[in-house]
Amino acid sequence: MKSVIIVYHSGYGHTQKQANSVYEGAKSVDGVEAKIFSVTEIDAHWETLNAADAIIFGAPTYMGSVSAEFKKFMDASSKIWFTQKWLNKLSAGFTNSGSPSGDKFNSLVQLATFAAQHGMTWVNLGLLPSNSINSTPADLNYSGSSFGAMAQSQHDAPSAPHSGDLATAHHLGKRVAEMSLKLL
Amino acid sequence: MKSVIIVYHSGYGHTQKQANSVYEGAKSVDGVEAKIFSVTEIDAHWETLNAADAIIFGAPTYMGSVSAEFKKFMDASSKIWFTQKWLNKLSAGFTNSGSPSGDKFNSLVQLATFAAQHGMTWVNLGLLPSNSINSTPADLNYSGSSFGAMAQSQHDAPSAPHSGDLATAHHLGKRVAEMSLKLL
Amino acid sequence: MKSVIIVYHSGYGHTQKQANSVYEGAKSVDGVEAKIFSVTEIDAHWETLNAADAIIFGAPTYMGSVSAEFKKFMDASSKIWFTQKWLNKLSAGFTNSGSPSGDKFNSLVQLATFAAQHGMTWVNLGLLPSNSINSTPADLNYSGSSFGAMAQSQHDAPSAPHSGDLATAHHLGKRVAEMSLKLL
Amino acid sequence: MKSVIIVYHSGYGHTQKQANSVYEGAKSVDGVEAKIFSVTEIDAHWETLNAADAIIFGAPTYMGSVSAEFKKFMDASSKIWFTQKWLNKLSAGFTNSGSPSGDKFNSLVQLATFAAQHGMTWVNLGLLPSNSINSTPADLNYSGSSFGAMAQSQHDAPSAPHSGDLATAHHLGKRVAEMSLKLL
Repeated sequence: MKSVIIVYHSGYGHTQKQANSVYEGAKSVDGVEAKIFSVTEIDAHWETLNAADAIIFGAPTYMGSVSAEFKKFMDASSKIWFTQKWLNKLSAGFTNSGSPSGDKFNSLVQLATFAAQHGMTWVNLGLLPSNSINSTPADLNYSGSSFGAMAQSQHDAPSAPHSGDLATAHHLGKRVAEMSLKLL
Repeated sequence: MKSVIIVYHSGYGHTQKQANSVYEGAKSVDGVEAKIFSVTEIDAHWETLNAADAIIFGAPTYMGSVSAEFKKFMDASSKIWFTQKWLNKLSAGFTNSGSPSGDKFNSLVQLATFAAQHGMTWVNLGLLPSNSINSTPADLNYSGSSFGAMAQSQHDAPSAPHSGDLATAHHLGKRVAEMSLKLL
Repeated sequence: MKSVIIVYHSGYGHTQKQANSVYEGAKSVDGVEAKIFSVTEIDAHWETLNAADAIIFGAPTYMGSVSAEFKKFMDASSKIWFTQKWLNKLSAGFTNSGSPSGDKFNSLVQLATFAAQHGMTWVNLGLLPSNSINSTPADLNYSGSSFGAMAQSQHDAPSAPHSGDLATAHHLGKRVAEMSLKLL
Repeated sequence: MKSVIIVYHSGYGHTQKQANSVYEGAKSVDGVEAKIFSVTEIDAHWETLNAADAIIFGAPTYMGSVSAEFKKFMDASSKIWFTQKWLNKLSAGFTNSGSPSGDKFNSLVQLATFAAQHGMTWVNLGLLPSNSINSTPADLNYSGSSFGAMAQSQHDAPSAPHSGDLATAHHLGKRVAEMSLKLL
């Protein structure tokens, strides 16, 4: 069995929906045990993280980068960084914000840089963008991201993120889980 | 009179339309002389660039960063960099690609880094994102960019970029021109 | 009189020394009133920030981006962002970490993106790199940064950051202060 | 046998030395066939690239991002991107410039974004930084990079890059080659 863990922060519930879709995607793969933790409860789970084969990081984009709550988790991981306990684990990322682009790329680079400091290997989204005039937010990778999964939750949307963004998140979780099975 | 110059590359004409809108915006400001040059003709205009108050850079995003043709111009400017002839000029940037987000943020950071090496001052877009369920691509800053102006041109769109993206480009040109008048 | 404010976080005192040098540089300019606030005391000073002509942001780079404590300040500023009260103010950034490069570029982009969301104008470092075999950490801009001021504080250095890094920080504060006087 | 290819551009020979070290590192691993191509000769080798298990990209940082010559290769790969022929291959990056930091991080992010568009998996450097007062440029990862291998070549150095930077490059090549053997 391979172990894939999703660690996320959600301020208003949108990123949690995205995180759940990533989790469902990972869980759907035979031979993989998936777990999902909010950063608010992470202190009980450091040893589980250290034992994982892959960790997928996700947070809302606030003011152009990941939320302070998620950054607290990143900073707390510096103890693990000293001994490189996450070296060679797989990693990936996702983020949510109010607009189609909205500096979310910057959050994904921030997460990828974080994973790089830990010596983890970064799994990209692996989906072509949906860039035709017939494309809609119900499509996979509507935003046209490559570093990870993006989602849009408009501030006044009764149901957000878009269905396509949740499917994209599901794809990412499944992809990382499948990749973990391919890595000896 | 202040002088604002737009330097751009366009592969298929979409970024040229965006560049023209930036130019029209800059030209609309009293007390400002605006000029627009394609990088393909830039060798005749280095002295004009050196004498400008502001330079706005724009290029399509190809494979996640500005086109090789635009990069050639950037590399050629290293002679000017040695003597910091562009120090303290205003600068700004814009880019176009096929999808709403599409790693365009990375191109804007690349342009801003380039301007930073020249010691230029970077003027950001200065527009809130349009992130409501009623938002459409006809709105200003529909993509939700902050570092500069983004435009989307779907590969099969008969008329692209979106009208809102061209208005956003116009806003950027006007904004930089107005800023140049405020700088002693 | 123009007003320039330095807002910083420091975990172990190194970034505070860098921040103090930025402050001294800003204070050294006639016609400019400089102030310096730690993010830990920022709640008493939001109105002062709103009234400033320029704000310079600084934080240590932890795990590849600015510290969670500084990010908390960034996230708290979202209330101001809604009404764009910082629009057109000048901005700049600095950061400190243990190694010469150490992903500090990423923190400066994070700060610049944050300033971009606020519609601020970003003042770059404006110094050529010191890249000769005779260069030493006592030089201005030894690391070769362009987006802002970098400092290096080795984990076991009795006195850090390097003298050249503090001089670079002083230069940045002075530069932003002088720029504020040039802006009508 | 696994196949690892290094694709690089070098303007003055420094990045070529770095590329050769990456190549030697990859070649040193049993069960791996390593090849090295300059972008100037790449047109003869697209099919070889398409058949590789891992591609390592490297270029000098000019004006804050990879050289125009290397970008030409990146743009030319868009034909391959359409059919995602490089999907799930391993990838990694390296870059060289005149100063210790020098915006090289931006070039590594540019290369990682490029690899992300191709759906490749990114192998990070996997080395802690050398950030003690006793650290010297002869050390592994002296600059403190995480996204890939950095090298410094001062403009007047008779022999550059630093020996530690070449050892770091060697490490990266070896690491990617070993990782390719672990991937089914």
